[in-house]
Amino acid sequence: MQFPKQITLQQIATLIDAEVIGDANAVVAGINEIHKVEKGDMVFVDHPKYYNVCLQSNASHIIINNKDVQVPEGKNLLYCEQPFEAYLTIVNHFRPFTSQTKSINDDVEIGEGTIIMPNVFIGKNVKIGNNCIIHPNVAIMDYTEIGNNVVIQAGTVIGSDAFYYNTKKDRDVWYKKMQSCGNVVIKDFVEIGAGCTIDRGVTASTIISEGAKMDNMVHIGHDTFVGKNCLFAAQVGIAGATVIEDGVTLWGQVGVSKTLTIGKNAVVLAQSGVPSSLKGGKTYFGYPAEEASGKRRELVWIKRIPELWEKVMKK
Amino acid sequence: MQFPKQITLQQIATLIDAEVIGDANAVVAGINEIHKVEKGDMVFVDHPKYYNVCLQSNASHIIINNKDVQVPEGKNLLYCEQPFEAYLTIVNHFRPFTSQTKSINDDVEIGEGTIIMPNVFIGKNVKIGNNCIIHPNVAIMDYTEIGNNVVIQAGTVIGSDAFYYNTKKDRDVWYKKMQSCGNVVIKDFVEIGAGCTIDRGVTASTIISEGAKMDNMVHIGHDTFVGKNCLFAAQVGIAGATVIEDGVTLWGQVGVSKTLTIGKNAVVLAQSGVPSSLKGGKTYFGYPAEEASGKRRELVWIKRIPELWEKVMKK
Amino acid sequence: MQFPKQITLQQIATLIDAEVIGDANAVVAGINEIHKVEKGDMVFVDHPKYYNVCLQSNASHIIINNKDVQVPEGKNLLYCEQPFEAYLTIVNHFRPFTSQTKSINDDVEIGEGTIIMPNVFIGKNVKIGNNCIIHPNVAIMDYTEIGNNVVIQAGTVIGSDAFYYNTKKDRDVWYKKMQSCGNVVIKDFVEIGAGCTIDRGVTASTIISEGAKMDNMVHIGHDTFVGKNCLFAAQVGIAGATVIEDGVTLWGQVGVSKTLTIGKNAVVLAQSGVPSSLKGGKTYFGYPAEEASGKRRELVWIKRIPELWEKVMKK
Repeated sequence: MQFPKQITLQQIATLIDAEVIGDANAVVAGINEIHKVEKGDMVFVDHPKYYNVCLQSNASHIIINNKDVQVPEGKNLLYCEQPFEAYLTIVNHFRPFTSQTKSINDDVEIGEGTIIMPNVFIGKNVKIGNNCIIHPNVAIMDYTEIGNNVVIQAGTVIGSDAFYYNTKKDRDVWYKKMQSCGNVVIKDFVEIGAGCTIDRGVTASTIISEGAKMDNMVHIGHDTFVGKNCLFAAQVGIAGATVIEDGVTLWGQVGVSKTLTIGKNAVVLAQSGVPSSLKGGKTYFGYPAEEASGKRRELVWIKRIPELWEKVMKK
Repeated sequence: MQFPKQITLQQIATLIDAEVIGDANAVVAGINEIHKVEKGDMVFVDHPKYYNVCLQSNASHIIINNKDVQVPEGKNLLYCEQPFEAYLTIVNHFRPFTSQTKSINDDVEIGEGTIIMPNVFIGKNVKIGNNCIIHPNVAIMDYTEIGNNVVIQAGTVIGSDAFYYNTKKDRDVWYKKMQSCGNVVIKDFVEIGAGCTIDRGVTASTIISEGAKMDNMVHIGHDTFVGKNCLFAAQVGIAGATVIEDGVTLWGQVGVSKTLTIGKNAVVLAQSGVPSSLKGGKTYFGYPAEEASGKRRELVWIKRIPELWEKVMKK
Repeated sequence: MQFPKQITLQQIATLIDAEVIGDANAVVAGINEIHKVEKGDMVFVDHPKYYNVCLQSNASHIIINNKDVQVPEGKNLLYCEQPFEAYLTIVNHFRPFTSQTKSINDDVEIGEGTIIMPNVFIGKNVKIGNNCIIHPNVAIMDYTEIGNNVVIQAGTVIGSDAFYYNTKKDRDVWYKKMQSCGNVVIKDFVEIGAGCTIDRGVTASTIISEGAKMDNMVHIGHDTFVGKNCLFAAQVGIAGATVIEDGVTLWGQVGVSKTLTIGKNAVVLAQSGVPSSLKGGKTYFGYPAEEASGKRRELVWIKRIPELWEKVMKK
């Protein structure tokens, strides 16, 4: 999330009751979580395991619960005891969730030739381009950006919250939501089936690129990037912060884990599971997804075990 | 389902045109299906295979199509030819499905600070606690109870009918719905993703306990119990009358069969299938789900079959 | 799609700027894609690989981008350079997608005793029989036909567009939608769960036969035929143009590929994948789905590999 106007580190410090270690007059561009952080941004960290990742990231400002760390040159700390709570305070201040009584918010920008069917919900700060069709019972949540010639079929949800939690098993409620302030960006000529869900980014954008097509009941996790001309069959699920490069085909019920990359023009056959990155240009199958030709041979080998058994036992 | 006021066995007998064998003045607390029946309740049985289970259950009153059974002391029978039809008559009498013209029924109880977004449907006798967010296009069906600080994301359905049928393959329509009269109970700090479906209990409650979190497109069957602080990733499906104990994690696209138990703090890895009960505290993988370490070794063993084959054939 | 009134080949030729090769006064009954074409119909073909399939099909009239083909007796050609674009022009002319402002279109025919709950969308030319319940937040798209005693649970979408594209990887947008002009036909006593999606036929009908029951989040592809008394558990997905014969049971999360047949009374166990046709009357399991007894033995054989290994290595 970028801040709406110029904010200094001191202003943030006052908001979250933190101590500035560094340049209190430095400008903070926005707050982002570690996978998406850019220069000028602020990030937060509360677990020693991740101190270094955050200090060495592109972040210019780090909200942290420890003063005794090596601060790289040109970076600033905001010291406080509860960095996660500080994050929530900042999000609630700059992008609070608020009620809405109208099905379509007044500030929506809708392009020429775009059809919005009945029972559609459109939240705040949403932009929709030209010649789109938004079918009935679709929900388009706050800050979504949709390009031209996009079709979204009935019952689909664009911009639901990230499934992303701060976990501490020593309290009554283990999981505390890392409130989303990101959005979904859908480019031109994208078509999304019925009953799909696309989560918004935690602090940045979930992006569906030009010409991607999705069948029904496809789930796309927060901060995931879907490349141009990707084709996803029904009931595909992709977890958070994953990169699907251009031209990838995922057949029905494929599952893809988080924070990995599937290379350009790869094809993953139906019901396969992808727990780690795959190179482009090849066809994959099974769990864990491996090159299809080899994986298919494994199925043949399994059928030969009884013969093998008999041979060995007879000797 | 508990009956709304004091009902005698004779009153039920009159309603369903049955013969009382036992104490006609006995009070009937409610009607429940066999998995959920409690003392004072009525149950029905029409297949000899299940006579004994029902007679020996906690039920105090049994609707049955056979008089020549051994009745345990203190229990009463209601004899009729069509116990299943009798069940439907009772449900339709005490909890009929009726039309509703308003998106939000007038009798709903909504707590302080709770936000109901546009295009939400709320049925009859629904209670929602404080500080909840019910996102757009959610449907909350009759008799649902929701605690405090609950979030339900867009497009989700709470309280759809159980997928539970009386089957007879000698009639034109094989499956006749066992009409649901139960509900869904969602406790404090539960968060449910977008596009989820949670079926209500057939006669009792489907329960989601404190602090459980579900990602998008999760399906929970009727009468299932989800413990505290459970975490279910996207596209998980759990069949009916299953018990998921506290702290269980199910990763993406896991499927869990009916009437089984997954023990406390168990973890089931993505795309696994759970056909029978699992002990708590361990990590499981594959179909059928087994301890992950052993199951992963099987994948390695499969890759060694060609080597084994070569060795054996050379000898 | 049948044309609404009598249309001659010459009229179509004028509409799409094509040359008639054959009888310009011949009557064209309708346009259908190759899986569904009948005598009197028109079909289109643009790839030499499929010329013969189309010329030898039941189609009476073929839109084609090549004049030098052997035309079977009694058939006519419409020659043009872009048969796919011609198809789109015809569909947009005879069945254009148009906006709708009311949640329930005025021309809907609704039978006696049928309940339509709040927030339901009903498109154009929809017929619904007697004693149905259409639960909240359901979307029923144009031209859907629903019989008597049908229940559709909340959030379900009936009649979403087929996931069916013309693919050319040498243009910017690879996939161009083959616009649907078919519909969904749901027969008597069908019950469909919450959050399901049933695509309409590309040019013909997706059919759900009498007494079929589906649990939540079931996906049915375009032009698929579901037989009488089929039973589909939650999260089942069936691709396009497949035939599921009467009495078939598919358990949870089963995936079925396109254009295949599953025979009468077959049972496919949970999470199985069906890539090719299955004979009726048997129980199947795994991926690829095979007879369950044999497939289960494979799981046992896999567990014996270590023993086999040890034996062979010791020798």
